[in-house]
Amino acid sequence: MRVAILAHEKFPDRAKTAVGLLRYADYEVEAVLDRESAGRRVSEFVPDVQDAPIVAGMDDAPEVDALVVGIAPIGGGFDESWRSDVRTALERGCDVISGLHYFLEDDEEFAELAAEHGCDLWDVRKPHEDLTVAQGVADEVDAEIVLTVGTDCSVGKMTATLELLEAARERGADVGFVPTGQTGIMIEGWGNPIDRVVSDFTAGAVEEMILERGNDYDYLFVEGQGSIVHPAYSAVTCGILHGSMADRLVLCHAAGREAIHGYEDTQIPPIPDYVDLYEDLARPVHETEVVAGALNTKDIDDDETAHGAVETFRDLLDAPATDPVRFDAEEVLEAIL
Amino acid sequence: MRVAILAHEKFPDRAKTAVGLLRYADYEVEAVLDRESAGRRVSEFVPDVQDAPIVAGMDDAPEVDALVVGIAPIGGGFDESWRSDVRTALERGCDVISGLHYFLEDDEEFAELAAEHGCDLWDVRKPHEDLTVAQGVADEVDAEIVLTVGTDCSVGKMTATLELLEAARERGADVGFVPTGQTGIMIEGWGNPIDRVVSDFTAGAVEEMILERGNDYDYLFVEGQGSIVHPAYSAVTCGILHGSMADRLVLCHAAGREAIHGYEDTQIPPIPDYVDLYEDLARPVHETEVVAGALNTKDIDDDETAHGAVETFRDLLDAPATDPVRFDAEEVLEAIL
Repeated sequence: MRVAILAHEKFPDRAKTAVGLLRYADYEVEAVLDRESAGRRVSEFVPDVQDAPIVAGMDDAPEVDALVVGIAPIGGGFDESWRSDVRTALERGCDVISGLHYFLEDDEEFAELAAEHGCDLWDVRKPHEDLTVAQGVADEVDAEIVLTVGTDCSVGKMTATLELLEAARERGADVGFVPTGQTGIMIEGWGNPIDRVVSDFTAGAVEEMILERGNDYDYLFVEGQGSIVHPAYSAVTCGILHGSMADRLVLCHAAGREAIHGYEDTQIPPIPDYVDLYEDLARPVHETEVVAGALNTKDIDDDETAHGAVETFRDLLDAPATDPVRFDAEEVLEAIL
Repeated sequence: MRVAILAHEKFPDRAKTAVGLLRYADYEVEAVLDRESAGRRVSEFVPDVQDAPIVAGMDDAPEVDALVVGIAPIGGGFDESWRSDVRTALERGCDVISGLHYFLEDDEEFAELAAEHGCDLWDVRKPHEDLTVAQGVADEVDAEIVLTVGTDCSVGKMTATLELLEAARERGADVGFVPTGQTGIMIEGWGNPIDRVVSDFTAGAVEEMILERGNDYDYLFVEGQGSIVHPAYSAVTCGILHGSMADRLVLCHAAGREAIHGYEDTQIPPIPDYVDLYEDLARPVHETEVVAGALNTKDIDDDETAHGAVETFRDLLDAPATDPVRFDAEEVLEAIL
């Protein structure tokens, strides 16, 4: 499927859905829409993913099958400055895929245009209607459950999960992926958007996915969300931790991060405190252990400094660690599998 | 307002909304609907609340202004065996108030009957549409925030909150109430149903209430939900803990409870573990302390044994404790205010 990805004014650093799709999805990306970087190319910013031209808007995009909204602002609202791009896409007969909290299918103009031009609006973040409370039985599946947990939002939990998944499969391990956020769901073509479900059903929505796939694999890698110390999103993190009944945790962190992103009054606690907090919180429901760490070193230029940061992180964790994008994951996989 | 309360097959022990309304709301309760106990009276089961006859269904109820659904089954569904009671109520011109996850106003038959007979359907658990993510600013209000937290669901957090509220006001303290569940909202006539909001907005929905009322009182007593170790509901608990940025916590427990209600595989951890867990989890967002405990001793017949249970609980907590329904709350209030 050929797609254009909307990432206005945010590509690449604040467009994690866009970059995730460029890196991991089976889409052919024909263009990225970012009016601030029009005329440049993806490869100038992110060299190790598929390349594509950056254009100012849908009017300048080549022929595609779908427009994907590739940014997820805090709160998940729809920015009215994107309206003309979505309108143009629908008028050109393209489907529109969105992971926003704001549902495109509930937007009267978009719904009418989609009907008129025979296009689909896929609101990835709209939960299905049969979700319910967890029964506390995710530990009954055959698979070992491995969950990525974070020190903050946007530290690379999805990336770490997908990199470790790929590396584990290269070793011949039988691993399934349980996505929990919009990008993961877009990549996998399946999954419950955990941050959008009714709060009472948070753990239940994770459990449902584990019960559905947990007897088909030796391992399930569950994509984590948020952080247990996040002022806004900790509820989601806690629901995933208890609902997944994870056997092993991989703690994800971004090198140099000192405060919660967007909540600068909230300092990042010491790494060993996270280990205790995640393990202590999980224990009453299902005993678990932080067995490895994934450090996002993308803000560090040279490999030697990045390697040093990983070593420091490993010492604080007292467990194997790597940056699975930059370095190999062998030792970390030994601890996980 | 004169009401009938629906509590089929669950009154009183599994009908905490019904009992909460009988005890704390300003409603005149004219009947309780419970087909299993028809012909008896409320006072035979619960002596210390307003009395009312128990009837088999709405056909046998005296004239009232509203029917209130006073039970909240796990999952919050609508039991079809209640349909004829709701239908009869609407046909008699009564409003219907419900805290179920299932919204009566989305039920075609009820919506039509309500329109036809000029009745209101009030779905207490339907969140308003402007909720969003927390900003992490609940600590900026003038009031000290006191939150009840639990070892489990249904241990008496709402009851403890309301009893302590009443006792504090009797001492002359200037205290506001922040309800978070259907019964509290029915009693207060205001509030966000935290267990029903989008999971990403859990903390934000609590914060919104605190910002709205936090400068009008010296103290806000926030009704807690669930438990941080609950296999299904911990997400809600965690969101309330971080969203409220509570200054003081009151740990609520039910004497004799050994496993999570309905999740018998999940043992109740030792009380000191709860203290550590709640305090450690809150700290990165807002430093807090378990300053007191509330023990629900309703399953203990004699006062002496109940007093002993409170003493044991106090020792485990290392803080003042009481059963605020059964004993006085002076020492606990000293610790809270």
